[in-house]
Amino acid sequence: MIVVMKPSATEENIVKVQKHIEALGLSTHLSKGSDVTIIGVIGDKHKIAVLQMNSYEGVEKTVRITEKYKLVSREFQSERSVIDVRGAKIGGRELAIMAGPCSVECEPQLMEAARAVKAAGAQFLRGGAFKPRTSPYDFQGLGEEGLKLLAQAAKEYDLRVVTEIVDIADLDVICKYADVLQIGARNMQNFRLLQAVGRTDKPVMLKRGLAATITEWLNAAEYIISSGNDDVILCERGIRTYETFTRNTLDLSAVVAVQEMTHLPIIVDPSHGTGRRSMIAPMSRAAIAAGADGLIIEVHPHPEEALSDGDQSLRPEQFAALMEEARRIAEVMGRKI
Amino acid sequence: MIVVMKPSATEENIVKVQKHIEALGLSTHLSKGSDVTIIGVIGDKHKIAVLQMNSYEGVEKTVRITEKYKLVSREFQSERSVIDVRGAKIGGRELAIMAGPCSVECEPQLMEAARAVKAAGAQFLRGGAFKPRTSPYDFQGLGEEGLKLLAQAAKEYDLRVVTEIVDIADLDVICKYADVLQIGARNMQNFRLLQAVGRTDKPVMLKRGLAATITEWLNAAEYIISSGNDDVILCERGIRTYETFTRNTLDLSAVVAVQEMTHLPIIVDPSHGTGRRSMIAPMSRAAIAAGADGLIIEVHPHPEEALSDGDQSLRPEQFAALMEEARRIAEVMGRKI
Amino acid sequence: MIVVMKPSATEENIVKVQKHIEALGLSTHLSKGSDVTIIGVIGDKHKIAVLQMNSYEGVEKTVRITEKYKLVSREFQSERSVIDVRGAKIGGRELAIMAGPCSVECEPQLMEAARAVKAAGAQFLRGGAFKPRTSPYDFQGLGEEGLKLLAQAAKEYDLRVVTEIVDIADLDVICKYADVLQIGARNMQNFRLLQAVGRTDKPVMLKRGLAATITEWLNAAEYIISSGNDDVILCERGIRTYETFTRNTLDLSAVVAVQEMTHLPIIVDPSHGTGRRSMIAPMSRAAIAAGADGLIIEVHPHPEEALSDGDQSLRPEQFAALMEEARRIAEVMGRKI
Amino acid sequence: MIVVMKPSATEENIVKVQKHIEALGLSTHLSKGSDVTIIGVIGDKHKIAVLQMNSYEGVEKTVRITEKYKLVSREFQSERSVIDVRGAKIGGRELAIMAGPCSVECEPQLMEAARAVKAAGAQFLRGGAFKPRTSPYDFQGLGEEGLKLLAQAAKEYDLRVVTEIVDIADLDVICKYADVLQIGARNMQNFRLLQAVGRTDKPVMLKRGLAATITEWLNAAEYIISSGNDDVILCERGIRTYETFTRNTLDLSAVVAVQEMTHLPIIVDPSHGTGRRSMIAPMSRAAIAAGADGLIIEVHPHPEEALSDGDQSLRPEQFAALMEEARRIAEVMGRKI
Repeated sequence: MIVVMKPSATEENIVKVQKHIEALGLSTHLSKGSDVTIIGVIGDKHKIAVLQMNSYEGVEKTVRITEKYKLVSREFQSERSVIDVRGAKIGGRELAIMAGPCSVECEPQLMEAARAVKAAGAQFLRGGAFKPRTSPYDFQGLGEEGLKLLAQAAKEYDLRVVTEIVDIADLDVICKYADVLQIGARNMQNFRLLQAVGRTDKPVMLKRGLAATITEWLNAAEYIISSGNDDVILCERGIRTYETFTRNTLDLSAVVAVQEMTHLPIIVDPSHGTGRRSMIAPMSRAAIAAGADGLIIEVHPHPEEALSDGDQSLRPEQFAALMEEARRIAEVMGRKI
Repeated sequence: MIVVMKPSATEENIVKVQKHIEALGLSTHLSKGSDVTIIGVIGDKHKIAVLQMNSYEGVEKTVRITEKYKLVSREFQSERSVIDVRGAKIGGRELAIMAGPCSVECEPQLMEAARAVKAAGAQFLRGGAFKPRTSPYDFQGLGEEGLKLLAQAAKEYDLRVVTEIVDIADLDVICKYADVLQIGARNMQNFRLLQAVGRTDKPVMLKRGLAATITEWLNAAEYIISSGNDDVILCERGIRTYETFTRNTLDLSAVVAVQEMTHLPIIVDPSHGTGRRSMIAPMSRAAIAAGADGLIIEVHPHPEEALSDGDQSLRPEQFAALMEEARRIAEVMGRKI
Repeated sequence: MIVVMKPSATEENIVKVQKHIEALGLSTHLSKGSDVTIIGVIGDKHKIAVLQMNSYEGVEKTVRITEKYKLVSREFQSERSVIDVRGAKIGGRELAIMAGPCSVECEPQLMEAARAVKAAGAQFLRGGAFKPRTSPYDFQGLGEEGLKLLAQAAKEYDLRVVTEIVDIADLDVICKYADVLQIGARNMQNFRLLQAVGRTDKPVMLKRGLAATITEWLNAAEYIISSGNDDVILCERGIRTYETFTRNTLDLSAVVAVQEMTHLPIIVDPSHGTGRRSMIAPMSRAAIAAGADGLIIEVHPHPEEALSDGDQSLRPEQFAALMEEARRIAEVMGRKI
Repeated sequence: MIVVMKPSATEENIVKVQKHIEALGLSTHLSKGSDVTIIGVIGDKHKIAVLQMNSYEGVEKTVRITEKYKLVSREFQSERSVIDVRGAKIGGRELAIMAGPCSVECEPQLMEAARAVKAAGAQFLRGGAFKPRTSPYDFQGLGEEGLKLLAQAAKEYDLRVVTEIVDIADLDVICKYADVLQIGARNMQNFRLLQAVGRTDKPVMLKRGLAATITEWLNAAEYIISSGNDDVILCERGIRTYETFTRNTLDLSAVVAVQEMTHLPIIVDPSHGTGRRSMIAPMSRAAIAAGADGLIIEVHPHPEEALSDGDQSLRPEQFAALMEEARRIAEVMGRKI
């Protein structure tokens, strides 16, 4: 941390800041410029992390140099993590393709979706049984009944189940049926839930919060890993901006950032990232070209009858066509589907 | 809802859209313009709420006319709600003043803070015992020990306790000590938690999410009220924008918007809303002048030693001076402190 | 400036960075921590301002400590500037009240508006003759004809004219009629225009750009002052955020920030800042309570017939009522209207 | 346009709204629902465009159905525009590659850059002679001297010159040397400048504003085309969001949106879009995979000595490597470089 003193700071102000820092067992390093004096703080990262120096007289601002997270960082582990989900690997040469309906609605819907996404190349079946909905009057999911259908469809078509958890109370029942636990954007900073999934042995897919910085996202991942679970997959799903043409603004540069900063795999959700069916294929291609480790895409046999997110769901034949295009981009990237 | 058809939509496209809507028991109303045809949807609000028509061929876009929430709206209840918390009223002529440290740290800190805020005019003591922190390595709160200290200080100085709940598992213990349950910005869309506090008889203060629209915020309040608890207080605490000079951008126009749209009281948090000590007094005055029903402010006897949010905490004497200014603005507004 | 080296940076990397900086006549100051080495750069502020060090091998990031602007800063001039516009002072004890229609439309409209705003207490008449409009098909203003009407109305009612300039080509004709030149939000970084008004002797009101940081705004003001014109008034008019309920998000904390950082007066535009008539009075009161030096408000005798911004214009009687409220808040603040 | 009446609107309110609309020669269409009445407005698009109905009593809100722009839309011209710049086509099968330094600094720098970008496959040489800089103390460009160097380098290496215009006063001199006129992000709504370049016969590259919506951007393009110049190329360069890790957030979904809504070609600027050298190659690949018609990239022979934007400039060998990757993605897309 750097403490920048005001041009008007007195010698006494500076000494007081230094003393407080040194009393905590940290060292200081003074740099007197023509305009301002800056005080560098050296020592234990975790002690520095909790320092709050703006309250001291004469302090202009403080600048943090190092981040608080550790276990997710590339400094901690330089090789990229590859997460094995019952034989399907996330983060390796093969791209992870997750597809299926927004919500599990009924057996025929789910079986038809599962069959279609498997045929087109997906290894994972996505589907919501417990839905976090903006309004209490929206469809809230089928609950355990939905989980059973997911497990049945996954078994039938040799897929792995990815489903969202919204409450610790559901943890046991979801773990019974799911292969990957999804933490949704709205729960990215539900720290207790992060710790709870961090105590399971299920891989966790952590979506970026609606307006989360990359740093906040990585700190959220650190909550999971520091609770004991190393198998975290990040998922970029668009951020909230002033632009209303798209539902969110898909931030593909986050893929590159995350791969520079962490060893965790990252997949992209162009369905929520754009909210528009016509944009899913181009943004899927772009995600792969940017280096993403996989895609998660909403596919519904009859989008116009969907109970949620119909407007951003692909029909099975559209998904199949997209997989063809994705395959060719993947090849250029030295990856495969 | 309005369905706007593309200029290129055929008669067949239009009929298909109408048939789908009418099959759900809703009526349609056709308006053919020179450029585009629009289809008005008339009937039961909740049936309309779940319609997803963008998947139909020929549809350009859909526009929602009415919101999904109901119980929070002024159409449902035209007079403003006044919430009674052991004799202190929120939403009435008297402004609700909540003050205290970010985190409960130890008995002397809390007792000193409580004494000071009471002396300056606060009726509520704020303080975190369970803290949602960005990093797992930050101070996470004292837990029940902190709650006990809050209750003790509140009793000693005749204050009411406002404290945050971050997990349903803590509900019982928090209800034992707290007068008002706070839902923090990060949990605004933790819908299970909203429903859980909605089943208690404690007033709930619902902070606006980091990047929540006013509509999303009101829908979150609807979750609480529709679970059985009418006593909801909204709290504007700044939104996330591109500006980094302040920690958040305090959106005082939200005070006006909320009072037009709902019957719920709204208070303002200038501490989190700005993140800068020097801005707390001016933004407190501005909040009252905009019509806010109260303030929640971080006060710490020794900000430079605070375990969290020291940079945005007022010293007791600063808080007392602010209360003097606030009182005079409140008078102009026909309110009192 | 601080150069933060990567944990993996070599001694050679560090030396190369130091050598480049020292070759420019600047000094370096090395601070070796357990994790990272940081290099402080000391010396001439303007030399440091142009340094770009991220391209060097081993550099993690650079952090700027001091801003580039100088003439606008409180370090340069500690007392607040008061700008005299033909006897009306902006930045002094009396608040500057600017009011009038968005666009000058015709003589009766403008004369009626001028009479009304003068009667209610305004010293300045605002009105657009050259309008920057989003679409080329929108009303673009009356041009010089509009300026003449402004000058005529101002003379009749002893007001001062505030009007927008959008092109250097109009400078001479506008200077003939106007007392204050307004730079609109869309032109805040039209640097040539800033320099051009900086070469006149007319006070300039510089609106904050649609999504400008406070720092960018102050740098824009620096363009004007460094061109020779000290009389700059800043105007907060709302920033662009994700919230769509209001036209913009009025950032009243910017009033406080600007007064801490600069000596320039700052006024607030609640009309553009909210885009909603019902919010203008509460946000005007809030602006004064936050410490603003004045207000600029759209007033139209018949808003429903306005050629632009009718939805956010006050009727004369609404403006008069607002002035009464504003006066009482101003008194509390030790100001007057 | 749709006018949505409040639930409390009276019959008289409704009739008054209808009468005002019909008096302008437009028709209305009434739709009475159980909660609200909506009034559809039918007739001439440009008459509707200027309607402002929120001022009428009983009006809840108005919703615009059609956009104001026309000449840029796909309804006006369904086939994609291909713009010929001295033999190089923008918008056709071949991707337009523009590269070169941020600022023209001196002859050796520019000649070396030009040679390198040509060798790697660029058809266009970019370089700034008139620079819009945030601070008046930053390097402002070489002016006509820079233009001469650009023309000389372009001639030597058979490239076309793309350079920014910031002031109408420079139009003649820039037109003498440039092949494509660039309107920068800060001038996207400098409407007089748009009209001025719209009266030339030079192709214009219009960058998206810092926080411009897609609709505002297309309206800006409409200014150019409606002034007589059909040759407009759009350029996505990142938008301003809350995320600070990248300089801007590159919005690749805008590529898809623009191609759906207009017939104009669109290219992508990953240099400004990310501000980080390591992100330029991945985001370039992603842009092509999303369907972009070209790229504009900052290349500098010695980035660490650049007078501007060194941190986001590629070295010649990095640019050559990127072109190899880009070529392979382009092939998959049925395009070529």
